[in-house]
Amino acid sequence: MKFGGSSVGTPERMQRVANRIIERQKEGNDIVVVVSAMGDTTDNLIDQSKILNSNPSSREMDMLLTVGEQISIALLSMTIQAAGSKAMSFTGWQVGMKTNDVHGKAKIMDIKPDRLLDALKEGNIAVVAGFQGVSDNGELTTLGRGGSDTTAVALAAAINADVCEIYTDVDGVYTTDPRVVKNARKLDEISYDEMLELAHLGAAVLHPRAVEYAKHYNVQLVVRSSFTYNTGTSVKEEAVMEQGVAVRGIAFEKNVARITINGVPDQPGILANVFNELAEHDIDVDIIVQSGTQNGTADFAFTVSDSVKDKALEVIDGIKSLVSYREVASESGLVKVSIVGAGMVSNPGVAAKMFTTISDLGININMVSTSEIKVSAVIKQDKLNEAVIALHTAYGLDTTEQAFVGGPAERR
Amino acid sequence: MKFGGSSVGTPERMQRVANRIIERQKEGNDIVVVVSAMGDTTDNLIDQSKILNSNPSSREMDMLLTVGEQISIALLSMTIQAAGSKAMSFTGWQVGMKTNDVHGKAKIMDIKPDRLLDALKEGNIAVVAGFQGVSDNGELTTLGRGGSDTTAVALAAAINADVCEIYTDVDGVYTTDPRVVKNARKLDEISYDEMLELAHLGAAVLHPRAVEYAKHYNVQLVVRSSFTYNTGTSVKEEAVMEQGVAVRGIAFEKNVARITINGVPDQPGILANVFNELAEHDIDVDIIVQSGTQNGTADFAFTVSDSVKDKALEVIDGIKSLVSYREVASESGLVKVSIVGAGMVSNPGVAAKMFTTISDLGININMVSTSEIKVSAVIKQDKLNEAVIALHTAYGLDTTEQAFVGGPAERR
Repeated sequence: MKFGGSSVGTPERMQRVANRIIERQKEGNDIVVVVSAMGDTTDNLIDQSKILNSNPSSREMDMLLTVGEQISIALLSMTIQAAGSKAMSFTGWQVGMKTNDVHGKAKIMDIKPDRLLDALKEGNIAVVAGFQGVSDNGELTTLGRGGSDTTAVALAAAINADVCEIYTDVDGVYTTDPRVVKNARKLDEISYDEMLELAHLGAAVLHPRAVEYAKHYNVQLVVRSSFTYNTGTSVKEEAVMEQGVAVRGIAFEKNVARITINGVPDQPGILANVFNELAEHDIDVDIIVQSGTQNGTADFAFTVSDSVKDKALEVIDGIKSLVSYREVASESGLVKVSIVGAGMVSNPGVAAKMFTTISDLGININMVSTSEIKVSAVIKQDKLNEAVIALHTAYGLDTTEQAFVGGPAERR
Repeated sequence: MKFGGSSVGTPERMQRVANRIIERQKEGNDIVVVVSAMGDTTDNLIDQSKILNSNPSSREMDMLLTVGEQISIALLSMTIQAAGSKAMSFTGWQVGMKTNDVHGKAKIMDIKPDRLLDALKEGNIAVVAGFQGVSDNGELTTLGRGGSDTTAVALAAAINADVCEIYTDVDGVYTTDPRVVKNARKLDEISYDEMLELAHLGAAVLHPRAVEYAKHYNVQLVVRSSFTYNTGTSVKEEAVMEQGVAVRGIAFEKNVARITINGVPDQPGILANVFNELAEHDIDVDIIVQSGTQNGTADFAFTVSDSVKDKALEVIDGIKSLVSYREVASESGLVKVSIVGAGMVSNPGVAAKMFTTISDLGININMVSTSEIKVSAVIKQDKLNEAVIALHTAYGLDTTEQAFVGGPAERR
């Protein structure tokens, strides 16, 4: 059972989570709980550090931030004990969560869960600090973004758990964001690959890294609400395919900018130059499109986050002599809308339906990108809701039930 | 260099401490810093826990409270780094601070400071979390009261440090409390035994446990201010004895209560009954006096803290049938005044001078207790200042210099 920081952010929530855990144990289960830092703890620690050092070393930052989860596990264990059940808390290093030594974004190398298993044998609920580990030479590390989800999945794999339940603010994975489409439907099942696409595409319910880990070790995931008793969504290898349903869900990512570089000499290595240079400046590029060549020159386009657009343009300006392009153009205020579904491969016309649906609304499609299980279209951001609502209906995803959506998204 | 929680309680203080440390390094020293939890951190964590569990397990309490020092070491290391020097922080378990597994008041069993020494070799200032350790089976422990002082002394012994400097709110050990005697004089030197008596007797500057540890391993201690550059007080095996000075200092302990039990049958084991029973109820007894027997019964008296007097009286009432005493009396609002000095043994008349000085003021002495290097007298609390000022003069301890006294006492 993994609980995020907002699920334990107040004493009342902490008590509710403790009761929830105890109920699951009384059903006859051995329980390992993974928990994140409470509410604002991490942000407060970061604020304190910034006063003293504007650019602190990542080693000391890990030393500082691992404290957040340690507070959570101690308080949650005390809360469980106050309710009359046995509990023991464990830091990352205490459960043998071995990582490499890349501070701030360490990778899990191995888990030696002996103490955890001993604690379970003695009837304890084991409460483990998410997000943290220890390197071979005894350095405290953090796993970076999605860290607590990843801790939970990795532990579940290491102890061969029957299921890894991710408790969050929403009661499962939806066909799309219920704040945009009132008739969004909660999915009972979804495959790892579909979940990966949805996770990458901005459905913040589960971190892609944890999904990859779960897929690799075949850990059955369930995403469910910490506020309700609804069933949640199972994430597994082969999700049951509903009759004739090619599209499982619709994701979108806001604040996208498109940059177009026109008149680039059609020579090997030119594209590589551009994207290496952008990567060296830590600029993440998403969609890249090149549509052929003309008179020995090519035009291509790519998308970045709006927030780094100006930086990207500077970088490109700096390599003008190297790339010798004719002109650069850019556009902000775009959004990427994606339809996702493993059934897409065997259903011709799925992509065509998307383009038709969007153009029937009089909306222009700026870019398109496809993979085996998704089709993405970039459109103007002010057309987002209109497009998603229409696509949701077009692919038969609407329901009549009311969706439950909780508070703010989990931090880690 | 050991710094308490109030020395690092604000960003400004943290920066001042960092500069102080860097100065000492630039003088050519290898530096290990031990630091306590900042300001109110520990109290805040305890408050949070009380909401969730009124009687939390000591294991989980240690898990929670060790966080306080971990925050301090990370932030202090960052601050040192921001000032341009190399620093590395270490938790208790990272510096091999091995303890037994008594949570909340663990004892240090062994220290394996290999990582610490490596860090020093690489030119780092090593910043170590005070107050905490790890048991053989990997449990986090805390050392209890005086923990950070003890951490500093134990590490100094383990790495064979030239000196262990305890930085605090006052600029050394005084002949008595400068808030009571304006002419109190800072001592340049004091012996371990004298310091122990002063520490036990309420001079809160250094924890007795740390002094005992220092005496055992012959660690040279210096107590000095984190706010001034004054020399401080050296605590060592043989302190230089000033000509004709038998008394090194005057300590006192307020809020003392005296309990008298009269008409106790003069049989073996009766006294043991009383004090075993009090110990089982966690009541600390200080002075015990029995002045002989009369008609087969004895009268005896002892002191406890005012705050537990009523509880002590209840306990004694509960064993009336067992002890069959005649009557019990008690008096509150007393204070214990003690003169301390290793030279007392070889100077006859030291105790007599104390009694004369006090009675010349018309003050009644309620109880007396002596050891090789101290004489204690219990008097009424409202006579305290008068008595201490007169004793200070009588034993030639006055100075004309102005004492420096800092803020509130350190917490740990």
